[in-house]
Amino acid sequence: MKIYPVIMAGGSGTRFWPLSRKATPKQFLPLATERPLIADTAARLKGLAKPSDTFVVCGKLHAGPAKKWVKGLPAKNVLVEPAARNTAPAIGLAALHVAKRDPRGILAVLPSDHHVANPVAFRHVLSDAARLAEVGQLVTLGIKPTHAETGFGYIQIGGPLYGRARIAKGFKEKPDLATAEAYLASGDYLWNGGIFLFRADVILEAIAQHMPELSKGLEKIAKTVGTRAYAATLAKVFPKLPSTSIDYGVMEKADGIAVVPGDFGWSDLGSFSALPEVRKADAAGNVISGKGALVLDSKGCVVLANGRPLAVVGMEDVVVVDAGDAVLVLSKAKAQDVRKVVEALKAKKLERFL
Amino acid sequence: MKIYPVIMAGGSGTRFWPLSRKATPKQFLPLATERPLIADTAARLKGLAKPSDTFVVCGKLHAGPAKKWVKGLPAKNVLVEPAARNTAPAIGLAALHVAKRDPRGILAVLPSDHHVANPVAFRHVLSDAARLAEVGQLVTLGIKPTHAETGFGYIQIGGPLYGRARIAKGFKEKPDLATAEAYLASGDYLWNGGIFLFRADVILEAIAQHMPELSKGLEKIAKTVGTRAYAATLAKVFPKLPSTSIDYGVMEKADGIAVVPGDFGWSDLGSFSALPEVRKADAAGNVISGKGALVLDSKGCVVLANGRPLAVVGMEDVVVVDAGDAVLVLSKAKAQDVRKVVEALKAKKLERFL
Repeated sequence: MKIYPVIMAGGSGTRFWPLSRKATPKQFLPLATERPLIADTAARLKGLAKPSDTFVVCGKLHAGPAKKWVKGLPAKNVLVEPAARNTAPAIGLAALHVAKRDPRGILAVLPSDHHVANPVAFRHVLSDAARLAEVGQLVTLGIKPTHAETGFGYIQIGGPLYGRARIAKGFKEKPDLATAEAYLASGDYLWNGGIFLFRADVILEAIAQHMPELSKGLEKIAKTVGTRAYAATLAKVFPKLPSTSIDYGVMEKADGIAVVPGDFGWSDLGSFSALPEVRKADAAGNVISGKGALVLDSKGCVVLANGRPLAVVGMEDVVVVDAGDAVLVLSKAKAQDVRKVVEALKAKKLERFL
Repeated sequence: MKIYPVIMAGGSGTRFWPLSRKATPKQFLPLATERPLIADTAARLKGLAKPSDTFVVCGKLHAGPAKKWVKGLPAKNVLVEPAARNTAPAIGLAALHVAKRDPRGILAVLPSDHHVANPVAFRHVLSDAARLAEVGQLVTLGIKPTHAETGFGYIQIGGPLYGRARIAKGFKEKPDLATAEAYLASGDYLWNGGIFLFRADVILEAIAQHMPELSKGLEKIAKTVGTRAYAATLAKVFPKLPSTSIDYGVMEKADGIAVVPGDFGWSDLGSFSALPEVRKADAAGNVISGKGALVLDSKGCVVLANGRPLAVVGMEDVVVVDAGDAVLVLSKAKAQDVRKVVEALKAKKLERFL
């Protein structure tokens, strides 16, 4: 059994502006530790998979940073998407490359920008999931929910399968609060963290069954993998592939998907307000980093300094970020509204700060 | 009757850090209009006094900026204090210079860092006060209080004197809130705005009577005014003069001081939280200035940008100041606590930011 991690690094979110920029989206920021999230993601796999078997799927702008931060990653394992087409085409592309080497190789699809507090537990769960994938199962990890979160998709647990694995009875879109609370209370739902395991041949077969259009495109590319025609074919075919998530395109449609429940201190780090979940706070609940931060009489704040003095006085539950060429002051409760700033900067023709 | 404005520019407050610095204290900042407060202070005197009759008392570091911002100010009218010794020595020094030109000339002592919304009313009051000073009276302006302020000294009103002028029955130190409320309710108290008028010979006589030590020092300096020995004598004598305010040293002790009540939209601009009193706010009560400010879903904030994007999202009653090499985020209610930042910077040996 060989695991081929596929680190999904195509994201280009804006919720960490002004730290995140086009050239350095969230996965390349050291949000949880001293190194970028993508480096943590790769390091977390130690013992499960080798860097030479690891793939990263990302945009052209991020191939360099990906190679820099995933230690030992061979250049040919950086799969550059000519255009962002959501996760199904990205995973399909990775499956082609894995299949070329090892048709029964197991893809472990991993978001590049999440945090795991307990990597040992994580590896255990992943290993269990891989063993199921080995026998031809489509597998997803389900994360034990800690609160009624409305920002995630959920997986409904069905009957027993093997060991702690269960049948995934259904994939649910982001719920409203009442639904999320009902999910949490029932104990029958897990968070969908976007972590999937399957053999290369099995996912390509599932794509052929549920996403024939994508499958046709992938077949064209498949013929050229490892040849000089690859780049041109990819550039021509990939941008026209249907922009669909693997959840919607395959997981919600396939039968008998396995879900392995896991509890490994997972956080999707959805916004600045999530930093206290993953970073050490002081006695007043402030998460402070960077030279120059001067936080006085404040509590529950996130203060990220950038060398120059950044004084925060008498504040509560506020995010203050100095990125050098731009500064953000944000109510923690409005952490999602960073996107409004991004929109405003666009409207003002200040894209150079994005 | 000739008025010699004496603009007191020796202040070195820290309540506007990071905008105010050692080299550019509050009076040299454009806090109320597009030009520094000291420039507004001088411009406000138009028609009452000539620039050639105007004096500025300040520290060595500020002689250049004073000359720059007080239009038409002769270099010899910048009276440089070799050391900061509070207002009584500063006023005494100015009185020597005025007396040398015109012993019965009227000094109008004016803080350089206050704001006046209604300069016409201000000139009327000052003119009335000057007429009283002309006949040998020590005169102070009393500002009609608008609220129970605990940050100012008060002047108790006594019997009638002439026109709207009254006898100043007493000078009161900054009161506690209950006392301030009683003062306000009584209608018998005015704010002490630090504006005084008196003839040069009269104030020197009063200093001789109430502050003999200061008077002796001033006499030594007086002998050298206009001679080559002046600078050396000043450097030797001035730093040893008693560091006392004119309020405490003379006004509280002298009898029969006149107070002329005034109502001219005065603000001492004591901290960032006072800016909404003097600057135009938007519909949500935000005072915003500087290129780069991006204020969204916020109210009652003071946001001073400095070119780069400064995004403020979902905030209420907060002061955000980007000074280029330092940034401040401050609860409006804690506006006085800027001094704590200054102390912290000193403790961290970061005086270069002060």
